[in-house]
Amino acid sequence: MGVVIPLEEGKNKLASVKPLVDLTKADMDRVNQLILSKAGSDVQMIPEVANHLISSGGKRLRPMLTLASAALFGYQGEGHVKLATSVEFMHTATLLHDDVVDESDLRRGRSTARMIWGNQASVLVGDFLLGQAFRMMVDVGSLEALDVLSAAASVIAEGEVLQLSVAKNMETTEDDYLSVIRAKTAALFAAAAEVGPIIANADKAGRGALKSYGMNLGLAFQLVDDALDYGGKAADLGKNVGDDFREGKITLPVILSYRRGTEAERAFWRQAIEKGESSDENLEKALGLINKYGALNDTIGRALHYGTIARDALAPLPASPLKAALLEVIDFSIQRVN
Amino acid sequence: MGVVIPLEEGKNKLASVKPLVDLTKADMDRVNQLILSKAGSDVQMIPEVANHLISSGGKRLRPMLTLASAALFGYQGEGHVKLATSVEFMHTATLLHDDVVDESDLRRGRSTARMIWGNQASVLVGDFLLGQAFRMMVDVGSLEALDVLSAAASVIAEGEVLQLSVAKNMETTEDDYLSVIRAKTAALFAAAAEVGPIIANADKAGRGALKSYGMNLGLAFQLVDDALDYGGKAADLGKNVGDDFREGKITLPVILSYRRGTEAERAFWRQAIEKGESSDENLEKALGLINKYGALNDTIGRALHYGTIARDALAPLPASPLKAALLEVIDFSIQRVN
Repeated sequence: MGVVIPLEEGKNKLASVKPLVDLTKADMDRVNQLILSKAGSDVQMIPEVANHLISSGGKRLRPMLTLASAALFGYQGEGHVKLATSVEFMHTATLLHDDVVDESDLRRGRSTARMIWGNQASVLVGDFLLGQAFRMMVDVGSLEALDVLSAAASVIAEGEVLQLSVAKNMETTEDDYLSVIRAKTAALFAAAAEVGPIIANADKAGRGALKSYGMNLGLAFQLVDDALDYGGKAADLGKNVGDDFREGKITLPVILSYRRGTEAERAFWRQAIEKGESSDENLEKALGLINKYGALNDTIGRALHYGTIARDALAPLPASPLKAALLEVIDFSIQRVN
Repeated sequence: MGVVIPLEEGKNKLASVKPLVDLTKADMDRVNQLILSKAGSDVQMIPEVANHLISSGGKRLRPMLTLASAALFGYQGEGHVKLATSVEFMHTATLLHDDVVDESDLRRGRSTARMIWGNQASVLVGDFLLGQAFRMMVDVGSLEALDVLSAAASVIAEGEVLQLSVAKNMETTEDDYLSVIRAKTAALFAAAAEVGPIIANADKAGRGALKSYGMNLGLAFQLVDDALDYGGKAADLGKNVGDDFREGKITLPVILSYRRGTEAERAFWRQAIEKGESSDENLEKALGLINKYGALNDTIGRALHYGTIARDALAPLPASPLKAALLEVIDFSIQRVN
């Protein structure tokens, strides 16, 4: 299913994450080493489970945000590498717990840890990584950074519970959905970006700019992820089109299609999502309705809206290659739908 | 099954937790209020799940340890209430995750949260409480206390994974078992007791004394818990005799009986624990073997050993009602087997 992304004027090529990757490469090498060493334990199962997920080829966008946002404010110390690693561990712990909660079989095209080592190991290794994340934060010694990241940890869990309590409820509004993705995804992006200026002793304006950038980038990122589930290619995604549909997840493409539909179409959605009638035939029908109501394009439209807010959040900062790289990540996050 | 606890000379009555309860009552009232307020959330399911466990009548021994150990060193501030609440939240989060990992139906005589709200809510509300625990610690602002408690969080999870990897393995040694209970139980007792002197700015000797007291009290406490599972009354425990047996948990009464048994008896244990043949008839047989080899008395003997170490850890501290109350808790923890 095609989605038309309006490219900004004067831009002829697709945006890329490469400039950010290149600018953070030296520090990311250290983050990657620290990830391996802090996922280590004498208890053999811990590095096995942790490395399964860690080596599965995620983009590691979140730790790059921390490194870049510290560098953007001229940070010269060593703490950014530990905080970036903490951020990635918080994310990894969330994924381990999410797979248990969602009863997922596949992530990024590979069996989930819970399918190999069981739910038990996934819960506990997630707990271990969260503990290690906090230890590294404590090591850095910034109470302000600890405050931001520990608040994010609570908010993420709160968002996951909220998602659970709206699950399979077709009356979920776009606002409910936004509350969920703000908490479960955007809060960590925001914290990842905000701790950079914090340890660089930037002023309030700088902190606020990066926090807002991260929050809105995170919203755009999750909106596009949710669109991809109904329009992407399984190979690119490491998941199958329709996974969210089969799990009865309420995402914006579904919310828009439901609210814009006829009474008969709404009855179909309730059967499919609330009663779990998620056959391939019903998925085809759902994709047809999503197309009929332009729900993917409009989901991407919302992502573009938050992308614009993220862009404006950084506007007061002086031009630099790092700033340009962070701005390009906004476009990249949205354009990956193509 | 009777167990003989040798009472110390000159002691004619059973030890009680009451002196500690009385001495910490004013602060515990504030802890209990803070527990309710920090388990609150706009996401309705969070306080529901949290309060189910919170209201189930645990002794709250761990937060009392934090309050008492701060008071023992003359602490005058406000941080001890938040740290004590953090400690209880860490414990509650562990219980929520444990019940999922152990697939338990009952805790303290009531249905576990996972039986009412599902595994998903138990995992996520546990994560939320852990996040809230860290926020409160950050609020107190002591990096040393944060260091001790975040290290404990990692170690606890590590201990749980270790327990998982020795599960149903009858070749588990007493040392393996000690590693598990040291990490999953004693580490939090130790941290709970150590953060008191830390925020009271006590010297290294004071910190070391309370840490050692907590660690060894925790070991004694868990040893007795594991003995109770084969010798206690279900009503007192809120669990049934033989729960550990039915779950195939390797605890010291089983380890001792196995290692002291004949070849035929060892074959029985392997069938029962490794193959899960945990019928009532087999439980009866197991209880008979535990009795035959004095495994409960010797488990309590080990608890007395650690209790003595805990007692000696506090020996250098001046006499006071608080110190006496902490010492009495050692005896109480062991004598509750009767």
